[in-house]
Amino acid sequence: MGKKVKLIKGGLCAPRGFKVSAVSCGIKNPAVERLDLALIYSELPTVGSAVYTQNEVCAAPVRLSSSYLKSAEPRAIIVNSGNANACTGHDGMLKARAMASLTSKALGLKQREIQVCSTGIIGVPLPIERMEPKFPELVESLGSDSDLAARAIMTSDTKPKSVSVSVDIGGVRVRIGAIAKGAGMINPHMAMMLCFVTTDAAVTKAEMTLATKEAVDHSFNRISVDGDMSTNDTVVVMANGAAENKTITRGGPGSAEFREALTEVMLLLAKKIVSDGERVTKLVEVKVRGAASNLDAERVARAVGNSKLVKCSWNGNDPNWGRIIHAVGYSGARVKEEMVDIYLNGVLAAQNGLAANTHIDKLSAAVAGDQFTVGIDLHLGKGEFNLFTSDLSPEYVLFNREEYALNRAR
Amino acid sequence: MGKKVKLIKGGLCAPRGFKVSAVSCGIKNPAVERLDLALIYSELPTVGSAVYTQNEVCAAPVRLSSSYLKSAEPRAIIVNSGNANACTGHDGMLKARAMASLTSKALGLKQREIQVCSTGIIGVPLPIERMEPKFPELVESLGSDSDLAARAIMTSDTKPKSVSVSVDIGGVRVRIGAIAKGAGMINPHMAMMLCFVTTDAAVTKAEMTLATKEAVDHSFNRISVDGDMSTNDTVVVMANGAAENKTITRGGPGSAEFREALTEVMLLLAKKIVSDGERVTKLVEVKVRGAASNLDAERVARAVGNSKLVKCSWNGNDPNWGRIIHAVGYSGARVKEEMVDIYLNGVLAAQNGLAANTHIDKLSAAVAGDQFTVGIDLHLGKGEFNLFTSDLSPEYVLFNREEYALNRAR
Repeated sequence: MGKKVKLIKGGLCAPRGFKVSAVSCGIKNPAVERLDLALIYSELPTVGSAVYTQNEVCAAPVRLSSSYLKSAEPRAIIVNSGNANACTGHDGMLKARAMASLTSKALGLKQREIQVCSTGIIGVPLPIERMEPKFPELVESLGSDSDLAARAIMTSDTKPKSVSVSVDIGGVRVRIGAIAKGAGMINPHMAMMLCFVTTDAAVTKAEMTLATKEAVDHSFNRISVDGDMSTNDTVVVMANGAAENKTITRGGPGSAEFREALTEVMLLLAKKIVSDGERVTKLVEVKVRGAASNLDAERVARAVGNSKLVKCSWNGNDPNWGRIIHAVGYSGARVKEEMVDIYLNGVLAAQNGLAANTHIDKLSAAVAGDQFTVGIDLHLGKGEFNLFTSDLSPEYVLFNREEYALNRAR
Repeated sequence: MGKKVKLIKGGLCAPRGFKVSAVSCGIKNPAVERLDLALIYSELPTVGSAVYTQNEVCAAPVRLSSSYLKSAEPRAIIVNSGNANACTGHDGMLKARAMASLTSKALGLKQREIQVCSTGIIGVPLPIERMEPKFPELVESLGSDSDLAARAIMTSDTKPKSVSVSVDIGGVRVRIGAIAKGAGMINPHMAMMLCFVTTDAAVTKAEMTLATKEAVDHSFNRISVDGDMSTNDTVVVMANGAAENKTITRGGPGSAEFREALTEVMLLLAKKIVSDGERVTKLVEVKVRGAASNLDAERVARAVGNSKLVKCSWNGNDPNWGRIIHAVGYSGARVKEEMVDIYLNGVLAAQNGLAANTHIDKLSAAVAGDQFTVGIDLHLGKGEFNLFTSDLSPEYVLFNREEYALNRAR
C-alpha cells in the first residue's frame, strides 16, 4: 500500500455523511432469521459511478440501476441477498422498480436516485411481499454500523468483507469505505458479484467515472475463482464531498492519490473475495511476464488460473508445472515452449520449457501454503498481467451440486 | 448409425492386413506389470492422414510424427503410455527419434514410415532404456488381438475403447477399426488424447486427408470433459487398400459412405471417451439450436459444457437452468434473454428466458439419469452445434490433486 493511503476503521461509514442499516425479511427462507436487505444512504448529494456485469443475460435490478444512473446521481443503494431477481422477466422488472419506489418514498428521494441490487438464486420470483413491510424499520434504523450491510449482502460467503482507508488529498484527509460479497460465480471479466463504495471526497463526475473504471480493471477484473460470470455483478461508488477537499478533477492535483486509494480498496476486497471463494483453500497470484503483449499475458494468466486440472493440483499441494505449461500452450498467446520459465512461489520449477534442477521437496513446499505466487516468464516481450485465483476443491463441487431443486422445493 | 454402416468385431485388426502387439516395460513404474508399449503395423503400404494437437506446447513425438508424415506414408505406429515425453526438450526429441528408429529397424521399414506417440505425465524424462529391450518381443508377438493395444494406451482410462465397422462401398465390403484413449485433459479443440484408425479401404491421399479432418471435426472436436487441451493429442489413420474396392476419390462414388463410416467410428469413440472421463458420472449432450451462426452456437455449447457451476449441478442431479442461461449469457454469442428456451432431456425448463411451468420433480427426473440432453434454443437464426460433455464430481478433483510429486518421487 502506498505511503499516503492508510487503513482505518468504519467501513462504509468511515467517510462522513453515510449511514447504513439492514433487516431480516426471510427472502430465501421465511423460517430463517438472517439479515438479507440492506440500505446504504448518503445524507448529502453525491457524484456517482458504477460498473455493471457484461453478461448478456443480466438481472432486472442491473438494467434498472444502469438506466437510473444515466439521468441521476445516486443517493441510496437498496440491496437484497437470497434472490438475484435474474431471469424473472417483466415480473422481475416490476419488482426491481418496486424496490426503488419503496426506498425512495421512505427516504423522500426521487426513484431514480436509488440504485437497486440483488444477489442470490437465478430464475426464482423475488418475494417482494416479504420485503415491503420492512422498509419503515430499515429507514428508522439507519446508523453507523457498516458491518450490518456487509453481512446482509452475503450469500455463500463465509465472512463479511469490508475495507476503509484514508488518503491525503492536498493536505485534506479524505476517506473511502467499501463492502463487497463474492464467493460463487467469480468471473473472468468483472470478478465479483457486488461491491459498494462510499467516499467523502469531492470529485468531478468525469474523474469519478474514470477512477472507478480504472480501479475495477485493476482489481475485480483480475480475480477468478470458477470462471463463471454473474448476471448481477455491480460496483457502485457514491462520493458526497463532505471532506471538503479541493475538488479532484481528471488528471488534476490529488487525482493520482485518489485513484491509488480507490484501487487499493477494491484490490483488498478482490483478494478477500478469492480467499473466501466457495470452498477455496488457496489464494494464488498468477504473475505473467515477458509476453508479446499485455493481452497475451492476460490470456496466459486466465488459461492457467481457470484450468480445472491446474486448480486441482494446487488443492493437492502438487507442484505440477507440466499442467501449467500446457495451459500456457493452449491460451492463444504467442508462446515459444523452449523459452518458458515457471516459478512456484519464487522457486524455479521449469526453465526453458524443461524441468528445472530443483528438488521436488522444495517445489512441494513452495505450493504447500495457503497463499503463493505462480510466476510465468515467456521471454518474448514486455507484456504482463497479474491474476488472483484459487484452487478447486472436492468440497467446491459438493457445495455446488444442489441449489435449484432445494430452493424450488421451499 | 446409417444403414450402410454396420458394427463388427475385431477392432484395429478387423480391416485386412493389420497386426498389433503390446508389451510391458514398466515406463511409469518398473515395479508394476502393465501393458504400456503398443505397436500397430500394416503389412501393406498405406495412405496415411493425421490430426495433431493445436497446443503451442506440443510433445516431441507430435513434432516428429508430423514432420515424418510430410514425406512418407505411415506403415506402423509405436505408442507408449505412462510418460508423455512432453516438455522434455532436446532429450525428448532424441528419445522420440529413438522410438522411431528402434521400430523401423525391428520391422525393416524406413524411420519416417513410423508414427510415434506418447501419453502420460508431462515434464518427466522418457525412460527409453526400459523400452529398448522389449522391441524384439513387440515385433515377434504381432497378431490380431487389437484389445492388447487398446489396453496398452490407457492412462487414467478405466476401460479400453475400441470400435470397428464395415461399410458397403460400391458393392465391396470395406472395414474400419479404431482404438482411442482419453480420460484427462479432454479439451475443446481436439478432444481426446490418442486415436488410431486402420482401414482396408482403397482411398486417395486427398480424400483420406479431408475425410479424417471432417471426421475429427464432427467427433473429437465436439467433446469436452475438463476444458483442458493436451500437448499430445493425435489421430492417425492408415488405409491399406486390401479391401480392393474401387479407389475412393474426393467427392467420387463411395466417398459419402466412407466419410459417414469414419465419422461414425470416431463419434462412437468420442462418446466413450467422455463417459469414461476421469470420475465422470454423466454423459451430457448439449444441443444448441437457433443461434445467429454456427460459431455462436458453438460458443454457447462450450460455455455451458465447460462451466464448473453447471457441471457441478449435473453431478448433483440438480435441474439448475439458471446456471445454464447465465453461461449462455457470457458465452460471447448474440443472445436475447427473453427468447431463450432450455430443455432438460426434452422437458421444458425455461421458456422465453423464464422458469417454465414445469413441476420441479419432473425437471429433477430429467437430469437424474447417467445420460441426458440439454437443449438450448436461442430463436435468432439457424446456427447449431452439438457438444458431448460431462458432469464435474468431487472424485474428479480428488483424483487430480496429486500427480507430479508422486511421479517424481519414484
